[in-house]
Amino acid sequence: MTDSGTPESAPVATHGTRRPGGRTARTRVAVRDAVLTGLTEHGYPGLTVEYVAEHSGVHKTTLYRRWGGLEGMVADALDMACEDDWTPPDTGSLEGDLRALARQVVDSFADPARAAAPTAFVAAALQSPQAASALRDFYTVRFTRCEAVVARAVTRGEAAPDIDAGAVVRAVSAPLFLRLFVTREPVDEAAADRSAAAVLAAVRAGVYSLGAG
Amino acid sequence: MTDSGTPESAPVATHGTRRPGGRTARTRVAVRDAVLTGLTEHGYPGLTVEYVAEHSGVHKTTLYRRWGGLEGMVADALDMACEDDWTPPDTGSLEGDLRALARQVVDSFADPARAAAPTAFVAAALQSPQAASALRDFYTVRFTRCEAVVARAVTRGEAAPDIDAGAVVRAVSAPLFLRLFVTREPVDEAAADRSAAAVLAAVRAGVYSLGAG
Repeated sequence: MTDSGTPESAPVATHGTRRPGGRTARTRVAVRDAVLTGLTEHGYPGLTVEYVAEHSGVHKTTLYRRWGGLEGMVADALDMACEDDWTPPDTGSLEGDLRALARQVVDSFADPARAAAPTAFVAAALQSPQAASALRDFYTVRFTRCEAVVARAVTRGEAAPDIDAGAVVRAVSAPLFLRLFVTREPVDEAAADRSAAAVLAAVRAGVYSLGAG
Repeated sequence: MTDSGTPESAPVATHGTRRPGGRTARTRVAVRDAVLTGLTEHGYPGLTVEYVAEHSGVHKTTLYRRWGGLEGMVADALDMACEDDWTPPDTGSLEGDLRALARQVVDSFADPARAAAPTAFVAAALQSPQAASALRDFYTVRFTRCEAVVARAVTRGEAAPDIDAGAVVRAVSAPLFLRLFVTREPVDEAAADRSAAAVLAAVRAGVYSLGAG
């Protein structure tokens, strides 16, 4: 086992600089698509470099040279998922923003086709330390973007300045992700609204203050 | 694909009637142990009937006859996990009980060896509808037992009688399970205490009232 397949060493030349028209970018997208298809069809342990080569049209030697191996391909697919221009909702109130965030989670998973890739990544991360590291990085980026919601609430005086924004935005998704990924129970808009209301009540009670203990 | 491997049809003769000394019970434990070892070593897609036969010492034809197939074995292992005599903490207050529940989750996953089996089951459930069904049943039983904590709080006047006890006990675990199974971030006692405090604040604010909307 070498380090060549870890996310850190995966050569992500286009990271942060999207070049949708370039050959390198097209290759990267083709590999990402093949990884997603393979993960959703066969799961992480069933994913092979041969499968990715066949479904992306990219030669195996190129795959090994640019991504190091499967772990690097899975990590790069997660890196690409971070490169979108998504920003959290801005409704004008913390209550509205938290509710909109929670509803976005429910909407994302209402369509099984859209839910398949994130579900496959979570499963992969439970079986591969490299995929786990990449998924942790992915969620760090996502939740850090979400923290804008809390920063605006602090500016508006809806939350104390010493609030743990990371804990707040994780708490909004938590009951929904519990049902989607762990207990495998359905989620709906009522569950989203209740999660947002619970977090708001906890914020108002000062639970997420970094000074609380 | 037949129904013979689904949890519903798995012949779970000893369900709810523990017979630790019987030959059937010993066989069932041996198969369960082999399933756990196989899941943690190879993941769900790498688990085979051959592996279970070899590691349990139970003949393949017996495995197929009694469990129908791998899905039935995984489901039965989850059924057995429900058959312990665990009850939720009873500290005398809702605050204390919620905190004790959350800390139990953190303690359970502090030891990688104890964490391996639940993690493997969650991964299996993300890849097999049958495992998902069995895991959903497992968590339904677990969380239903936890609801005693809320019932006692209602009796003590700490919560309104129309509280959604199932949502409350899920909410306590949710931020911890999010970190353990989805974002793959560490958990600690402070995270447990904060989760309990957040749920308590939401209960006091009436968020979990079934009449709230």
